Amino acid sequence: MKISARNQLKGTVVDVVKGATTSHVRVDIGGGAIVTASITNESVADLKIVKGLKVTTVVKSSDVMIAIED
Amino acid sequence: MKISARNQLKGTVVDVVKGATTSHVRVDIGGGAIVTASITNESVADLKIVKGLKVTTVVKSSDVMIAIED
Amino acid sequence: MKISARNQLKGTVVDVVKGATTSHVRVDIGGGAIVTASITNESVADLKIVKGLKVTTVVKSSDVMIAIED
Amino acid sequence: MKISARNQLKGTVVDVVKGATTSHVRVDIGGGAIVTASITNESVADLKIVKGLKVTTVVKSSDVMIAIED
Amino acid sequence: MKISARNQLKGTVVDVVKGATTSHVRVDIGGGAIVTASITNESVADLKIVKGLKVTTVVKSSDVMIAIED
Amino acid sequence: MKISARNQLKGTVVDVVKGATTSHVRVDIGGGAIVTASITNESVADLKIVKGLKVTTVVKSSDVMIAIED
Repeated sequence: MKISARNQLKGTVVDVVKGATTSHVRVDIGGGAIVTASITNESVADLKIVKGLKVTTVVKSSDVMIAIED
Repeated sequence: MKISARNQLKGTVVDVVKGATTSHVRVDIGGGAIVTASITNESVADLKIVKGLKVTTVVKSSDVMIAIED
Repeated sequence: MKISARNQLKGTVVDVVKGATTSHVRVDIGGGAIVTASITNESVADLKIVKGLKVTTVVKSSDVMIAIED
Repeated sequence: MKISARNQLKGTVVDVVKGATTSHVRVDIGGGAIVTASITNESVADLKIVKGLKVTTVVKSSDVMIAIED
Repeated sequence: MKISARNQLKGTVVDVVKGATTSHVRVDIGGGAIVTASITNESVADLKIVKGLKVTTVVKSSDVMIAIED
Repeated sequence: MKISARNQLKGTVVDVVKGATTSHVRVDIGGGAIVTASITNESVADLKIVKGLKVTTVVKSSDVMIAIED
């Protein structure tokens, strides 16, 4: 599968915190940067997401904002 | 200002493509990775976003997905 | 690639309308239902999206709302 | 009420899983397709969403991505 | 129709700027506050959105962030 | 920090409901209007969000829809 979302950063899962319905997955994308994804528990189970897994974080361009220093 | 969005990656603007109402801003976040933001032309003007500007890309965790290789 | 987004509906592209930076892609998912995606022109070019192409529409669960009749 | 969101698919609720603050509602939209919505528990209570209820799933076009087979 | 999205603020359209595929609609919600919506041209035509129209701006809770002063 | 998101409404936190991973923060933006944000527990802790705190709710224009009366 190839998806239209422009932002695809590869990394390694460092942490999976499961809630009642929603999990937080933290991914080390290198250079000391961490990306956090809030996804369903079903997705975590379905994709067998665990600490150490190589993954790609995916974000649609319309969900990216730009900030500057004042 | 400090914002709740968990994902804040610093980088440098490499490209601004203006459309009729929407602009695409591409940011080099290092390590060869580019993040694309689709934002309003008003924001580009208001923040004076131009090639070479140091910026931070901001993404809410609920907008991040995880992909794996099959 | 396999992605965490829960909603993946298969269909056929019926229409691609290109704007200055953003395209609207309409997909017939069967049963008379059309799904419209607003994506970047770069994605349309990169995935070679044209009328008649078999595609999958992908939506994260946190982007789905529920409506009822009054 | 009539809303600007382009994607409105009718269906029947097959499942409501309540978490501490967030619920997952699964809707059968016909043809074997299920759409999952992640919404607040308050919304579930307010709209009285239960298994068997006829609902409409609503998604903004800017939240729809397109995927193709490799 | 009643929708699960928690944030529904009433106001009056003060401005509609049409792009090639995407329009920006600015709504005065009172108290000097303006809310800007980026929606498809099709929605603007379909809902007959023009300056002076009474509308409701609708936002899903998972799309709201919180910022504080440093 | 200054962010590209067009919609920034000031208000006061009236309520914080913590779930297992996700919190709901309700903000009184004046004129009887409440805005609800669904954010991570980490953000609530990091920004020390409590009842009574002065905050700004932030929403990207592409996440705003428009509704009209039938």
